[in-house]
Amino acid sequence: MRASVLLEKGVVEMQERPVPRPEPGEVLVRVRAVGVCGSDVHYYKEGRIGDFVVEEPLILGHEVSGVVAGVGAGVPAERIGQRVAIEPQRPCRTCRQCTTGHLNLCPQMKFYATPPIDGAFADYVTAPAEFAFPIPDSMSDNAGALLEPFSVGMWATGKAGLAPGSTVLISGAGPIGALASLAARSYGATRIVVSDPIASRREKILEFGATETVDPLASDFDPARIGADAFIECSGATPALLAGLQALRPFGTAVMVGLGAEEMPIPVQHIMNNEITLTGIFRYVDTWPKVIAAAESPDVDLDALVTAEFPLEEAEAALTQEPGEDSMKTIVVVSR
Amino acid sequence: MRASVLLEKGVVEMQERPVPRPEPGEVLVRVRAVGVCGSDVHYYKEGRIGDFVVEEPLILGHEVSGVVAGVGAGVPAERIGQRVAIEPQRPCRTCRQCTTGHLNLCPQMKFYATPPIDGAFADYVTAPAEFAFPIPDSMSDNAGALLEPFSVGMWATGKAGLAPGSTVLISGAGPIGALASLAARSYGATRIVVSDPIASRREKILEFGATETVDPLASDFDPARIGADAFIECSGATPALLAGLQALRPFGTAVMVGLGAEEMPIPVQHIMNNEITLTGIFRYVDTWPKVIAAAESPDVDLDALVTAEFPLEEAEAALTQEPGEDSMKTIVVVSR
Amino acid sequence: MRASVLLEKGVVEMQERPVPRPEPGEVLVRVRAVGVCGSDVHYYKEGRIGDFVVEEPLILGHEVSGVVAGVGAGVPAERIGQRVAIEPQRPCRTCRQCTTGHLNLCPQMKFYATPPIDGAFADYVTAPAEFAFPIPDSMSDNAGALLEPFSVGMWATGKAGLAPGSTVLISGAGPIGALASLAARSYGATRIVVSDPIASRREKILEFGATETVDPLASDFDPARIGADAFIECSGATPALLAGLQALRPFGTAVMVGLGAEEMPIPVQHIMNNEITLTGIFRYVDTWPKVIAAAESPDVDLDALVTAEFPLEEAEAALTQEPGEDSMKTIVVVSR
Amino acid sequence: MRASVLLEKGVVEMQERPVPRPEPGEVLVRVRAVGVCGSDVHYYKEGRIGDFVVEEPLILGHEVSGVVAGVGAGVPAERIGQRVAIEPQRPCRTCRQCTTGHLNLCPQMKFYATPPIDGAFADYVTAPAEFAFPIPDSMSDNAGALLEPFSVGMWATGKAGLAPGSTVLISGAGPIGALASLAARSYGATRIVVSDPIASRREKILEFGATETVDPLASDFDPARIGADAFIECSGATPALLAGLQALRPFGTAVMVGLGAEEMPIPVQHIMNNEITLTGIFRYVDTWPKVIAAAESPDVDLDALVTAEFPLEEAEAALTQEPGEDSMKTIVVVSR
Repeated sequence: MRASVLLEKGVVEMQERPVPRPEPGEVLVRVRAVGVCGSDVHYYKEGRIGDFVVEEPLILGHEVSGVVAGVGAGVPAERIGQRVAIEPQRPCRTCRQCTTGHLNLCPQMKFYATPPIDGAFADYVTAPAEFAFPIPDSMSDNAGALLEPFSVGMWATGKAGLAPGSTVLISGAGPIGALASLAARSYGATRIVVSDPIASRREKILEFGATETVDPLASDFDPARIGADAFIECSGATPALLAGLQALRPFGTAVMVGLGAEEMPIPVQHIMNNEITLTGIFRYVDTWPKVIAAAESPDVDLDALVTAEFPLEEAEAALTQEPGEDSMKTIVVVSR
Repeated sequence: MRASVLLEKGVVEMQERPVPRPEPGEVLVRVRAVGVCGSDVHYYKEGRIGDFVVEEPLILGHEVSGVVAGVGAGVPAERIGQRVAIEPQRPCRTCRQCTTGHLNLCPQMKFYATPPIDGAFADYVTAPAEFAFPIPDSMSDNAGALLEPFSVGMWATGKAGLAPGSTVLISGAGPIGALASLAARSYGATRIVVSDPIASRREKILEFGATETVDPLASDFDPARIGADAFIECSGATPALLAGLQALRPFGTAVMVGLGAEEMPIPVQHIMNNEITLTGIFRYVDTWPKVIAAAESPDVDLDALVTAEFPLEEAEAALTQEPGEDSMKTIVVVSR
Repeated sequence: MRASVLLEKGVVEMQERPVPRPEPGEVLVRVRAVGVCGSDVHYYKEGRIGDFVVEEPLILGHEVSGVVAGVGAGVPAERIGQRVAIEPQRPCRTCRQCTTGHLNLCPQMKFYATPPIDGAFADYVTAPAEFAFPIPDSMSDNAGALLEPFSVGMWATGKAGLAPGSTVLISGAGPIGALASLAARSYGATRIVVSDPIASRREKILEFGATETVDPLASDFDPARIGADAFIECSGATPALLAGLQALRPFGTAVMVGLGAEEMPIPVQHIMNNEITLTGIFRYVDTWPKVIAAAESPDVDLDALVTAEFPLEEAEAALTQEPGEDSMKTIVVVSR
Repeated sequence: MRASVLLEKGVVEMQERPVPRPEPGEVLVRVRAVGVCGSDVHYYKEGRIGDFVVEEPLILGHEVSGVVAGVGAGVPAERIGQRVAIEPQRPCRTCRQCTTGHLNLCPQMKFYATPPIDGAFADYVTAPAEFAFPIPDSMSDNAGALLEPFSVGMWATGKAGLAPGSTVLISGAGPIGALASLAARSYGATRIVVSDPIASRREKILEFGATETVDPLASDFDPARIGADAFIECSGATPALLAGLQALRPFGTAVMVGLGAEEMPIPVQHIMNNEITLTGIFRYVDTWPKVIAAAESPDVDLDALVTAEFPLEEAEAALTQEPGEDSMKTIVVVSR
């Protein structure tokens, strides 16, 4: 099969690889669409993310939809032909995290496109059968791939404790901000304020769940006037986190999603005086059923997030393209 | 002022009463619309509900919208003229329930139209200023009154632990079932199954949030096939509760709202084997902000629930009318 | 190896069986002590519990301590020789219950001594390595076996939402009531009221965590005067459940543990009017770390619960002995 | 009556003041013992804490026990003579925080010894009747006063989500660290690790709930080896907070109690990667019933925390004494 392989920092090559064999309990999936994530670009440019270093050739890509093409022992053959979206986690299933509902924090986790585990910029991948979720006919391959970042937004939003009537502030009008906004609407939030310094992004986010926007660089921006029940940080920018903490009402919750500095100067007394909860997310647990259902709402148009497509052979171009102001998600189309 | 007074079981009389004076911290409200609740009809017909007995003349009505017409000490005069919906509770504010977030269970509660506290079938009522919630111009007086039963549905639904993708079963396609369905949608439920034995009600409920309906008397009805995350009982019928408990997935939650028999034969081993949670509600806490926000959704049309209107002078007729199959809510119009 | 086998209802025979081989990820355990549970007695007497029917010869016993005697692939050989207590569950690990923290409700669960899965009245058993928990030297083999019923008490108590200062009512002063009392003390409850109609049991339970006792048959017993934050039903008796529901304060929680009638006449309006939560338990999740730690408290003496011991060859006698008023737990001693 | 009044920064004077009159719903309390809190010392030395500035003469002291000496309207006269400990909060009772269980965050809060509200370094104070909690005969006046800082420890600990078997790290072996340790034991934690750089304090804290201690300045101190379920920061020291965040297991909770820098450099990626929850506390809600019950445990000896006593006339000396290494709590004895 074809595979787009990151040999080392900045070097991608198309290779022929053997089609993987599904282990017992797994399915083999013919890949169709793969979303390009910031982490893919980061591995390409830097050869590492934190402690994860690309020391052997690595196939990138972890936002995946496709069609079941084979099954391992114990998986019903009827699944062959099923269109699926893949949750790209392979937890150990036996550690205390796995057995108590926190499998995303499994220390033995194998995750697509995280060294040394290969990802999905290839014709085929394998996955645990129960992590290959059937998707409805009405959902496109691209939308199926975007269920992965939508899961990130849904998991973050789920931690925010939203309810009908909630006000939520979301910082960053990029793809994760958009997907968090859509998730917030799914959870019943009725006032969804998105902050972003770029006017064209503020305008576009109104199509993705936001009910109003603010420019955090405006001279009259006063976050404390927002009185948000929850804040979801999707930009990775330190000033955005600090403004968001000021935007919360007493007892509010802040959830960090965007990756930025390792360390930030946090107003701890403000957190104490208002009994604010600050937390963050690492992937997700049990979100595919939620995002598949939420994606069927007429308010949710995942396809509209796709602003560029590349064939598998041009995966490197997908990783190196210069994002414009209006870029949201890029898809590597492996097959149709 | 005019007041429609229940003198004793089955006897209502229009009387002149003095306009009440708002105490410190209260507002005086010129009543506009009052919804008729099953409890009003019950007091009219039976003269009591459980331990609450009509021993003195009583003004019925506790689903109220109106306009602020006066303020007590400590309340800003600017509130005069504000259109409001009233949360009809007056908790003691000092007991342990009141100070720990469970004011609805305050043993000293004073509640409109619950003996010996007068309700709102009258030109004026008083209410604590913070329990008279401003409503938007876009909301009708009738809709403002219906925020009270919508609060019942919202509180019940909030206890059900819904999230995007949740399946919820609601038994009873009457007004509370409809409002619970709308609330379930607000909380993100994407599969909202309503059961009712009457076909015309099943049809109508699809306009109020339900995504599908079932006939619990159909020979092929098997609740266990539903696999609901939550069940909200709004009919008061014992068979409905029993079917709903069977409809839950493991670890599901059942919330009782509808009043029926005092005692029901509950399958306790089924509850244990599936670690089901069974609970019920008594009024609500902090729901007006939620229902006001939720009511602004284009999916929610509270006015469509109103199937009859009577002027204040005909409040008795409102209490005695024979409900048709398609009756939902009756409004007593006090002023416009 | 020796095994005490239930051939059919009321017929137990000692047999020679091959020593099982640990699968990958499993340990082989030389059994030392096995507690006799009411369910073992029930299978012996009735040949079934609900839908679980003894159709093939079955080894009973699921409350187990022992010593690791061998390891399957992937398990460190250093574990051989370790004294362990076994959590007797083997969940499928891939269903939605297993991946979201509710493995006790796995529909594919294999559980010792539940047909057709053999239990531990035998010289050896196998278990998943992570479900064989090391126990401290200070803990006896008998106490190690009793960690299983202590887990039942701990899981039930964990659902009851206790905190320092809580009042809890526990009905039934048998072994589960005793272990629930000890667990309630571990969770910080400071008033632990146990009800039982037998005076000698009421007296004995004061050694196992109870701070006071009540006789539910006393003419002046008024449960409503207790005002319990939580109620844990450990008797299976319908009147005990009904009294316990009356004993709760508003917003209290009732947890059913004792098996009795399939159905009970529950005061549903009382549950609604007080927003009571009624739930029950089915086994446990992640309780061994809790009970091992709790058992080290000087307040907890699991050995004192053992009122009879039988060697493996006399397992049938252990199942058929007539329990006296002061009987608590019987242990089948397999080896020392 | 006598009152010790802070006229301005560093100037305290004994004055004669009129005995306050209890308002409706209040009690008048003859003060017996008042604990000296760090905030009292701070007001004395700096004349302010954050935005709270001593602009008028202020009576300090908010950790109070005494005897009911009079009652306002609506309070039973039988309360006169009752020994009580006072929860020093007077929330507005009508704001959304007050009506939803978060009265500690009421923006209209009146709190003893917080400008401009007078505290308890005086012969008499008034308090809402329901915030003057009866204490048992077995509890000393000093212990009654210390229920206030014990409440701080209990509220913090309650947020930490402890259960039997939990490991908790507490930084700071001062009085709040000691009271948090005792509270952690009450909540069932079985491994209570306290860190403090001073050896004599580490030794003493073992009498107050700690099960082991660590020296955070030791060259081999590696917080990550602790694997704590929860961390309670009671020192206010930035390095202590940072070490504590490293000490948590995945999904752990950190609760900030100690006041230090307004801002700290927090490892936000570490929080995200481990889905850690960071929060803090501001006073407490509904803790007196918990601490009164917990204080009756033989493990809890509040009197042992008292390392100095001063009569009311020497309140200034109590505020200015140089604390030794072994100083814990100072009590101002107003009457016996």
